[in-house]
Amino acid sequence: MKTPAAKVDDLTSSEGALRLDRFHEECAVVGVCGQPEAANLAYLSLYALQHRGQEGAGIVSSNGQALISHRGLGLVADVFNENIVRRLAGTSAIGHNRYSTAGETLLRNTQPLVVEFALGSLAVCHNGNFVNADEVRKRLEENGSIFQSNVDTEVLVHLVAGSRRPTLIERVIDALAQVQGAHCLLFLSEDEMIAARDPHGFRPLVLGKFASGGWIVASETCALDLVEAEYVREVEPGEILHFSGGEMRSLRPFTQVSRNSCIFEYVYFARPDSRVFGRNVYEVRKELGRQLARESPVEADIVIPVPDSGLPAALGFAEEARLPFEMGLIRNHYVGRTFIEPQESIRNFGVKVKLNAQRDILNGKRVVVIDDSIVRGTTSRKLVRMIRAAGAAEVHVRISAPPTISPCYFGVDTPTHEELIANNLDVEGIRKYLLADSLAYLSQDGLYSFLGGPAPGFCDACFTRNYPVSVNHDQEQRQMRLFHALEMQPGAARIPPRS
Amino acid sequence: MKTPAAKVDDLTSSEGALRLDRFHEECAVVGVCGQPEAANLAYLSLYALQHRGQEGAGIVSSNGQALISHRGLGLVADVFNENIVRRLAGTSAIGHNRYSTAGETLLRNTQPLVVEFALGSLAVCHNGNFVNADEVRKRLEENGSIFQSNVDTEVLVHLVAGSRRPTLIERVIDALAQVQGAHCLLFLSEDEMIAARDPHGFRPLVLGKFASGGWIVASETCALDLVEAEYVREVEPGEILHFSGGEMRSLRPFTQVSRNSCIFEYVYFARPDSRVFGRNVYEVRKELGRQLARESPVEADIVIPVPDSGLPAALGFAEEARLPFEMGLIRNHYVGRTFIEPQESIRNFGVKVKLNAQRDILNGKRVVVIDDSIVRGTTSRKLVRMIRAAGAAEVHVRISAPPTISPCYFGVDTPTHEELIANNLDVEGIRKYLLADSLAYLSQDGLYSFLGGPAPGFCDACFTRNYPVSVNHDQEQRQMRLFHALEMQPGAARIPPRS
Amino acid sequence: MKTPAAKVDDLTSSEGALRLDRFHEECAVVGVCGQPEAANLAYLSLYALQHRGQEGAGIVSSNGQALISHRGLGLVADVFNENIVRRLAGTSAIGHNRYSTAGETLLRNTQPLVVEFALGSLAVCHNGNFVNADEVRKRLEENGSIFQSNVDTEVLVHLVAGSRRPTLIERVIDALAQVQGAHCLLFLSEDEMIAARDPHGFRPLVLGKFASGGWIVASETCALDLVEAEYVREVEPGEILHFSGGEMRSLRPFTQVSRNSCIFEYVYFARPDSRVFGRNVYEVRKELGRQLARESPVEADIVIPVPDSGLPAALGFAEEARLPFEMGLIRNHYVGRTFIEPQESIRNFGVKVKLNAQRDILNGKRVVVIDDSIVRGTTSRKLVRMIRAAGAAEVHVRISAPPTISPCYFGVDTPTHEELIANNLDVEGIRKYLLADSLAYLSQDGLYSFLGGPAPGFCDACFTRNYPVSVNHDQEQRQMRLFHALEMQPGAARIPPRS
Amino acid sequence: MKTPAAKVDDLTSSEGALRLDRFHEECAVVGVCGQPEAANLAYLSLYALQHRGQEGAGIVSSNGQALISHRGLGLVADVFNENIVRRLAGTSAIGHNRYSTAGETLLRNTQPLVVEFALGSLAVCHNGNFVNADEVRKRLEENGSIFQSNVDTEVLVHLVAGSRRPTLIERVIDALAQVQGAHCLLFLSEDEMIAARDPHGFRPLVLGKFASGGWIVASETCALDLVEAEYVREVEPGEILHFSGGEMRSLRPFTQVSRNSCIFEYVYFARPDSRVFGRNVYEVRKELGRQLARESPVEADIVIPVPDSGLPAALGFAEEARLPFEMGLIRNHYVGRTFIEPQESIRNFGVKVKLNAQRDILNGKRVVVIDDSIVRGTTSRKLVRMIRAAGAAEVHVRISAPPTISPCYFGVDTPTHEELIANNLDVEGIRKYLLADSLAYLSQDGLYSFLGGPAPGFCDACFTRNYPVSVNHDQEQRQMRLFHALEMQPGAARIPPRS
Repeated sequence: MKTPAAKVDDLTSSEGALRLDRFHEECAVVGVCGQPEAANLAYLSLYALQHRGQEGAGIVSSNGQALISHRGLGLVADVFNENIVRRLAGTSAIGHNRYSTAGETLLRNTQPLVVEFALGSLAVCHNGNFVNADEVRKRLEENGSIFQSNVDTEVLVHLVAGSRRPTLIERVIDALAQVQGAHCLLFLSEDEMIAARDPHGFRPLVLGKFASGGWIVASETCALDLVEAEYVREVEPGEILHFSGGEMRSLRPFTQVSRNSCIFEYVYFARPDSRVFGRNVYEVRKELGRQLARESPVEADIVIPVPDSGLPAALGFAEEARLPFEMGLIRNHYVGRTFIEPQESIRNFGVKVKLNAQRDILNGKRVVVIDDSIVRGTTSRKLVRMIRAAGAAEVHVRISAPPTISPCYFGVDTPTHEELIANNLDVEGIRKYLLADSLAYLSQDGLYSFLGGPAPGFCDACFTRNYPVSVNHDQEQRQMRLFHALEMQPGAARIPPRS
Repeated sequence: MKTPAAKVDDLTSSEGALRLDRFHEECAVVGVCGQPEAANLAYLSLYALQHRGQEGAGIVSSNGQALISHRGLGLVADVFNENIVRRLAGTSAIGHNRYSTAGETLLRNTQPLVVEFALGSLAVCHNGNFVNADEVRKRLEENGSIFQSNVDTEVLVHLVAGSRRPTLIERVIDALAQVQGAHCLLFLSEDEMIAARDPHGFRPLVLGKFASGGWIVASETCALDLVEAEYVREVEPGEILHFSGGEMRSLRPFTQVSRNSCIFEYVYFARPDSRVFGRNVYEVRKELGRQLARESPVEADIVIPVPDSGLPAALGFAEEARLPFEMGLIRNHYVGRTFIEPQESIRNFGVKVKLNAQRDILNGKRVVVIDDSIVRGTTSRKLVRMIRAAGAAEVHVRISAPPTISPCYFGVDTPTHEELIANNLDVEGIRKYLLADSLAYLSQDGLYSFLGGPAPGFCDACFTRNYPVSVNHDQEQRQMRLFHALEMQPGAARIPPRS
Repeated sequence: MKTPAAKVDDLTSSEGALRLDRFHEECAVVGVCGQPEAANLAYLSLYALQHRGQEGAGIVSSNGQALISHRGLGLVADVFNENIVRRLAGTSAIGHNRYSTAGETLLRNTQPLVVEFALGSLAVCHNGNFVNADEVRKRLEENGSIFQSNVDTEVLVHLVAGSRRPTLIERVIDALAQVQGAHCLLFLSEDEMIAARDPHGFRPLVLGKFASGGWIVASETCALDLVEAEYVREVEPGEILHFSGGEMRSLRPFTQVSRNSCIFEYVYFARPDSRVFGRNVYEVRKELGRQLARESPVEADIVIPVPDSGLPAALGFAEEARLPFEMGLIRNHYVGRTFIEPQESIRNFGVKVKLNAQRDILNGKRVVVIDDSIVRGTTSRKLVRMIRAAGAAEVHVRISAPPTISPCYFGVDTPTHEELIANNLDVEGIRKYLLADSLAYLSQDGLYSFLGGPAPGFCDACFTRNYPVSVNHDQEQRQMRLFHALEMQPGAARIPPRS
Repeated sequence: MKTPAAKVDDLTSSEGALRLDRFHEECAVVGVCGQPEAANLAYLSLYALQHRGQEGAGIVSSNGQALISHRGLGLVADVFNENIVRRLAGTSAIGHNRYSTAGETLLRNTQPLVVEFALGSLAVCHNGNFVNADEVRKRLEENGSIFQSNVDTEVLVHLVAGSRRPTLIERVIDALAQVQGAHCLLFLSEDEMIAARDPHGFRPLVLGKFASGGWIVASETCALDLVEAEYVREVEPGEILHFSGGEMRSLRPFTQVSRNSCIFEYVYFARPDSRVFGRNVYEVRKELGRQLARESPVEADIVIPVPDSGLPAALGFAEEARLPFEMGLIRNHYVGRTFIEPQESIRNFGVKVKLNAQRDILNGKRVVVIDDSIVRGTTSRKLVRMIRAAGAAEVHVRISAPPTISPCYFGVDTPTHEELIANNLDVEGIRKYLLADSLAYLSQDGLYSFLGGPAPGFCDACFTRNYPVSVNHDQEQRQMRLFHALEMQPGAARIPPRS
């Protein structure tokens, strides 16, 4: 699924500053089959995967004869209630969390998408995006297709419906052969469920199994943990799993290509307690922190994380550097969507409503602060100022990943080149902007130190510009265009001109 | 637009009993162009046309470069507020009210439908339905089309998008040539508005003109009155009006067929203050009442209407019969959607919460009660019992139309044959069921007495079974199927099977 | 219960114009005891009495051991649902509808008021207001009492709690002896219900009886009709009904004074199907119309009512004048709270969104239009203009009551002297302002023609300035002060300074 | 402010299990004066103090002439928006967060309480409760007072209103002399603000100062940090601060008694980044962890906290024990109010939706898990089972406080004696119930090791039953009675009896 680039973070804006100055994951998917309460298990899975998308959620179940659907804007806990979950009857269900951006929270963009076509009803949900979606869409429109949303998924469904193959599984393969990019897809018909992961394996997708029978496919293992499914393995890149008549078949219809799993899942996206691409995320992050300490040590008194994402790397750094680890920044657990700032404005307001710097811990100390990335730099600058205002003698910033210099086109919401501070300034320039005493990033090689060997199989284009799939020149343009679409809400949409 | 047959009226159910035991109009449309506040005028028009549909409402405006849309469930006053109307900028706009049924209030079925296709953006709204929609849809699906709603309008839009003609107006004509049935349609693109009425002229559609320039097309003249547009004329059956570049062109691309305007608009659907098919509705209804008095006089003391729809006919009857007209039944003006009935149930509860029979007026009187139709008979029976319980010595029911014996397939929500009491019982049988002292319907000839001559040009199939367009055998089946569509939405429920 | 004077009706404001230019009834009360579903019957009664107050509603029931309460802002149908009604267990319940004004819809002013005091719990609801409330409140505050609302009821409850008498009924009598003004009061404790009507009998209150046992006390008989209670009689002026242990006792502890029932209940407030002060309201209104025709006949073609309140009087006028009665103005049944008017404003907008003048009926006709009152005159002027714009040759306004020249201080929401047009202009002056061809009011004597004899027992101070209870000079001042209290909502209140 | 005892935690209930099995702080207060945007600063302070109460929030401001109030149910971010904050004009404001329990979220219990009395308007908010409230209330009721809520604050306001002293400050002192117990109180009139802390100093209250002038009084320093106020000092036990005419006066009208500040603020209630009773909470908690390691060491592989409250103590324990600190339990950051559990129930569901045990970290390890308290034990048992299910070889539970054996009557919501597991079982009994390999609590002496000396000045009655104020025998009874109050509200339910 495709979503626009992140909103420009205004230095004076307080809303969501901390969250916005990150890359953003785009959506979670889950599919459950062979379980009498499939929708309830899908609901809990979406709840565990909420960090991957907060804009909207949806579940479609099949009772064997018809699809039953419910979608809504907001968090999983707001979209569903007991009545609704109970009405989503049937032994199979697919669900979706959609990533939240400010301007385009539209119900009609919420997934799963449900259509009727020649073979019956079909529900689809999607994590990722197709780099050739515009091209395919243009071709389809020329042949008389109509589009009711801006999501790539609709393009794919047209390809499935337009295929001349007799069965759903063949049509899905047919359709997937025509698109390029990142995707984890789940399809549900009255009597079949299909899971597909793109040949590069950009986004994570795992397979689990219930002790009482039945299967689950989900973006991360934390969903399996909550519903007590046993982790079986990753869905392999290029693999298609076909669940039908109580059986699971694995298909690999596409030519094998190099694996390019997203390294940023380790750096920031995934939940630390998930197993992603075969490894525990928390442990990888700790190792990134250790490696960072080895590469860029610093004479200091304490190591503090930017909570919560920087915590594992900070533990690793402190351990390796043999420095005390402290919670120098305390999170407010009740952060809402908006804060009303007085006109006589408060310094570092956007950060301060979320984090408080502890004077009693920081005062007079030389502080190493560990974060996982710097995107635009605005939030990091506020953090450094806030730590210093709490009395820190020195502030040393250590980032547990290389500089982010290039946008992502594979299902992640990133700023444009111009907005990425590391694309415009060198490390010293960034340090000056942050007003830090020192700044160091993890090296490109260090990033893969956790492997204990060579590093094949990852996409690190955001650090290197080495895109594993050739990216259309118009791609960045497209992200911008979608982003600028003037939409109204809720239940409203402004359809942008088709330039 | 197509909506399923009315919900079975349970004798013990109190909700909406009075409304449900009617035929129901299905939707209103309005289009405004050449006016700087087009959306505001469309909004007021929908408000004036609210009686034609209460389920949902939507408006799409064009600012010349893009379409801006807002739709929602509920009444016009709930769906729109000042901010929304202001954001619907532009000098042209189309709008739609959707008829309200209990179980299927789905946002995705709300109109206007907005799509993108090869020529750009297109918004469409529709009052009526296509008798060959299933057939066309099947053909489209076989060619790879996908459908996201159950409304006929989506079928039509596929035909427009699939046409090979170069301009929108040609494609619309192309598409309309492939469908049969009743329709009043409005299309809006970035720079054109198109209004079309089917060759039989089933549903009403009128053209108006603003003193300050610009045009309005709407289902009834009461919309024109509110926005101070001057009534010009009906949009003629088979006529297509093309508004573009400040000009209006009239096209008549189709072979002329006999006119078959819906007689039930006079009997019940239209607002009494509207001019429909060239006549004032209130005056037609009074004449129906007069003719009824001529045909079926009765020795009585007072004439009372079933408010409010029976009021004009009751005035006509009283005038002709030289009997006193009284408001023997008083309406509660604050009728909500639900009433909580005690377990020790109240007699005639469903009717009583809406109407109160005045003992001081009715006691000891021989009463003629005038209504416009009897559909299932359940509500009429409660009314007769209630009037009698208030002391009436005799209750004589007079209906200002012939017996309704057959469903409508042209954009009206009617029960099936089995549910229509007049299809199952003769007049004496109905009288017994109603427990009335006498019962008379208007004769088929009397129905047209207001014309003062022969009666060409009307569809009265609900009274005669003479359908002017051959109706597919599956048509009634289809209404049932749509009704069973399994779908949930915020605030919506899966529709239970009807057995 | 006390509510401020009506909001000044801005000529350019469209919101609620038609309603605002009336006097307004303030609240309905109902009490049910000895019935297993007491709260459900109270709920239905409030629903039938909704016309007396739309701001908020509340019910308190007693299960014999504790009071259970639910109150909310809005219409009865919005405030209650099945779950809530079910939880209001017990065999007795009292309920209240509060009249709706724009600026002060505060939950804390919603009734019944529930307190704990020395004898246990007590719920109270009140229709009317005390003319000496300020004085008593001042005295109570000086003795250390605190107040949490602006309603008179709280004053009364303090008096009950402060009484030294041992039983609730004695304390209620004690408290009532200290207040003057208009009231219909209902008290509910764990095991008693008390109904009281002030000695002048300003506001209506009736007693009914259930066939299955138990009693109901309500503002109007239309409530009894809906719940199938038999009308027994009025609660007499000065009477206190004490329901306890399955018995009803009637007490008359106060010196008898002259009866002064509100004549405006007949003119406008009460539902036409109610029996008020022993007479059917609809029939009284018809007789007012007949008398008006006798007093001020006019050469004309048709008689039309301002719907719905003017309908009975118009029927009476037409009958007496032997002129045709027509519905020349048609009501929109879907009037919401707000309408968004275009900037290029529509003539008579505020009236037009509610009523449409039928050109086909009015064109070329000499029209008599019947209304029940003219308050500020702004709405009437719009009506006359609108009727004329629809082609009427002449417009003759006939009012079925004398000119309203003075505010009410007995539980009715009225404008101040300055705002009442009849206080500022003579009949000819008003006629000119309305742009009518003629104008006539009912005479003061004619107002009582329906009695067929002398007219003792009514308060007509709004027509005559003969206030039956001496009104404090500060009383009008007080209405204004309360009205200007700056309140925020919901759940918000700005407490005005206590000048 | 007084709230009933915590809801019984059903072993099978999933809702809020983790939170419910704690003691609960009851409310936060804040007062700001001498600042042009007082309400905005109060709003931000409440936001920083949200952890002390989530049921409802309210702010009352004074513009010098009148009080302006807004209260609502829910979180601060939900109760207030920009418009509301803007309308709360004036240079002084007081605010309140109310603690959230399941069954009694009543708007009328939300604070500040606003009344009118002989001296004008008065707003009050309160953290704490009066042990002799029932007695005083009974006396007041006997003298004719009425009560509209169940909060102790209303009792106090009656005492203020009933005082015969001429000024507000004298009346406040008069009233406070009549109550015993724990309180931090803020009073606001049109032109004065008063802050009062009870002589024992049970609950925390601090004084801060704005660089631009003006003062703030708040429950914890984290509020001062967010609004950039400088910490001045604690409000001393028994001290009354009187803010009037731009001046602050300190009064100490009461006999000095021993200080008894709540030790549980350090153990669990306060935010770790707050300075409470003169010490940084985070550092005290770390020291509690260190002392625990010294007292009850264990051979183990890793130390893990129960996040987030156990984190500082776990860091201290790991440091002292020289064991690796790991985040073995990962928190879901999107915990909502409800979760829908499948019928085929999930093991440890209530805990699992909030915390996930990391198999990759815990597998095969001997684990020390650090928590701050065990209340009923049900949640702790689930935690132990969950850690073991994730593969832990041994699970050693260490609690950074002594066993909680007795309820609190000084403003904290605690279970009754019967529900406290440590009141019923010895440590070995609890260990068995938890299924832990070992269990140790901090010793009573160890609890005060952070002082580095004797420990005067704390109330630790929950650990020792040494109540510093004699507690009425009816006190626990009273908590029960309040809990049974029958009342419903929008969104609230009648509270069921507790048997």
